[in-house]
Amino acid sequence: MNKKQGFARAHTNIALLKYWGKVDSDLILPANDSISLTLDKFYTDTKVTFSDDYTSDRFYLNRHLMNPKKMQRVNRVLEAVKNEFGYQGYAKIESENHVPTSAGLASSASGMAALAGAAVDALGDVSDLNNLSRFARLGSGSASRSIFGGIVHWHRGYDHQSSFAEQIVAEDEIDLNMVTIVIDHRKKKIKSTLGMQHTAETSPFYPAWVEATNQAVPEMIAAVKENNFTKIGELAEHSASMMHATTLSSNPSFTYFAPETIQAIKLVEQLRNSGIECYYTIDAGPNVKVLCQSKNITRVRDFFKNYFAEEQLVVAKPGSGIKFTKN
Amino acid sequence: MNKKQGFARAHTNIALLKYWGKVDSDLILPANDSISLTLDKFYTDTKVTFSDDYTSDRFYLNRHLMNPKKMQRVNRVLEAVKNEFGYQGYAKIESENHVPTSAGLASSASGMAALAGAAVDALGDVSDLNNLSRFARLGSGSASRSIFGGIVHWHRGYDHQSSFAEQIVAEDEIDLNMVTIVIDHRKKKIKSTLGMQHTAETSPFYPAWVEATNQAVPEMIAAVKENNFTKIGELAEHSASMMHATTLSSNPSFTYFAPETIQAIKLVEQLRNSGIECYYTIDAGPNVKVLCQSKNITRVRDFFKNYFAEEQLVVAKPGSGIKFTKN
Repeated sequence: MNKKQGFARAHTNIALLKYWGKVDSDLILPANDSISLTLDKFYTDTKVTFSDDYTSDRFYLNRHLMNPKKMQRVNRVLEAVKNEFGYQGYAKIESENHVPTSAGLASSASGMAALAGAAVDALGDVSDLNNLSRFARLGSGSASRSIFGGIVHWHRGYDHQSSFAEQIVAEDEIDLNMVTIVIDHRKKKIKSTLGMQHTAETSPFYPAWVEATNQAVPEMIAAVKENNFTKIGELAEHSASMMHATTLSSNPSFTYFAPETIQAIKLVEQLRNSGIECYYTIDAGPNVKVLCQSKNITRVRDFFKNYFAEEQLVVAKPGSGIKFTKN
Repeated sequence: MNKKQGFARAHTNIALLKYWGKVDSDLILPANDSISLTLDKFYTDTKVTFSDDYTSDRFYLNRHLMNPKKMQRVNRVLEAVKNEFGYQGYAKIESENHVPTSAGLASSASGMAALAGAAVDALGDVSDLNNLSRFARLGSGSASRSIFGGIVHWHRGYDHQSSFAEQIVAEDEIDLNMVTIVIDHRKKKIKSTLGMQHTAETSPFYPAWVEATNQAVPEMIAAVKENNFTKIGELAEHSASMMHATTLSSNPSFTYFAPETIQAIKLVEQLRNSGIECYYTIDAGPNVKVLCQSKNITRVRDFFKNYFAEEQLVVAKPGSGIKFTKN
């Protein structure tokens, strides 16, 4: 029995300039570039074992076998990696998510990045990180960014080869932290794939969103390289606001906001006006993520403790890129 | 002592396709056409007395003398009417607002429309309603629409002469009613004049807002003429959502939404999905206005009584145009 094994650990990430809408849903080519912060603590460990003896691909998530019908995206990644290395057999994938649902963060980014990394680790050479990013992208757009640590730029590109992420600065070169206010940790009612598709198809504001985001990319890269927290925060907050404005302007209109989302936005403004610099960002869900510098993490957390339960507040710092060992 | 007296009663209105942004803030020429519903019950009564013996213009609102420094917009209307009729003296204006603050509705539309009507009634002929609409516009953009009853279309125009409102259908020709959910009856924190200016200057989505609204105008006119409640409601809800999307996308971003605004929006969707057809609209404030047909007013009100206090729910029906007598 000829076995090939690979392992990878990848961290989740949060977009500072949001990915919102695809131009190719098969290849997951996005309409606009995006820029993200990789987070520490929240990661996925994945082991991939290829064997000629297996008769089908099997995916165990937290030791539970996944329904083959739900493996469409996993299969896209596996097929692409197998093709690249000319492998014809099947795989057993064992994945452990360390992105607790209660943290209000999505696990698809770290999950698909770890899958891509472990599969390539089993069959070939993992040194080409841009290529890992391409494979991860086929599983989930935001996963393309989880290959790298620190601040990451996903080039939208125009085909499989040109659409990949790369690092702008490493995790130890940036002072940018996130306090998530977990307003609802249940699964999204409107999945981001559906939400972005409806928006791209029906919002009269969508073309302006794409243009504004692509224009903001060089500004964000410059701000990140200068470690200019104010500029990073302003650009991130505006990107999130614009993204949620596109959902409101779609037809029929919809919103990911919960009542407490508005409450949290106003509290962020209140805290900022009081002299503690912080900015919000919001993904395709009601949770509000507060960006701040290290010196203010405790102050930000203490302030929100007045309005939310302690277990609703989750702190994350810049995280590292993909690794192929457990340590 | 040579006195000339005039009187007018004008009703307030709610925009179905929103007015949001000016191209000329002096003449109040809007960037886009708008369409509104005039409301019964909520109105302003205004008496204007011109006399050669007066030495200044005085404005009494609910019997309180207004600070002359706050009379800028009143003066614009008065000056324009005086010029039109070659009158050189001053005016005493006595205005009674029957738009209770607790109804969550603005009184500037009915107030400036009644002022324009009463001033013209004192000095000349009130039969040219389009001309009254122009004078009212100089006091407050939305006042141009309060000259007429039923459903009203304000042509944006390109100069003073071409920017005026006219009736699409009369109040007895349309089955369209409004239940306001008064979430906060205090004055707006960000006045609509400032909010629309900031939006027009900084939102990357603003040009698309103007284009989308102007494109929706003929659709709304057709829907109104057919008394097509579904189409009117869908267009109105989308217009309101787009308007609030423009504030979110401005830079820095802002919103008129309160937490309860999101709650009310979701309740409207829930009620509609349960088979009671209704749509929301929201102006430059947190209050949510629910549009429904006559047959559903009680059902809509009863549903929202489960979530809001009875005094927070205010019903309004289509109202009539300007009148020059008290009855």
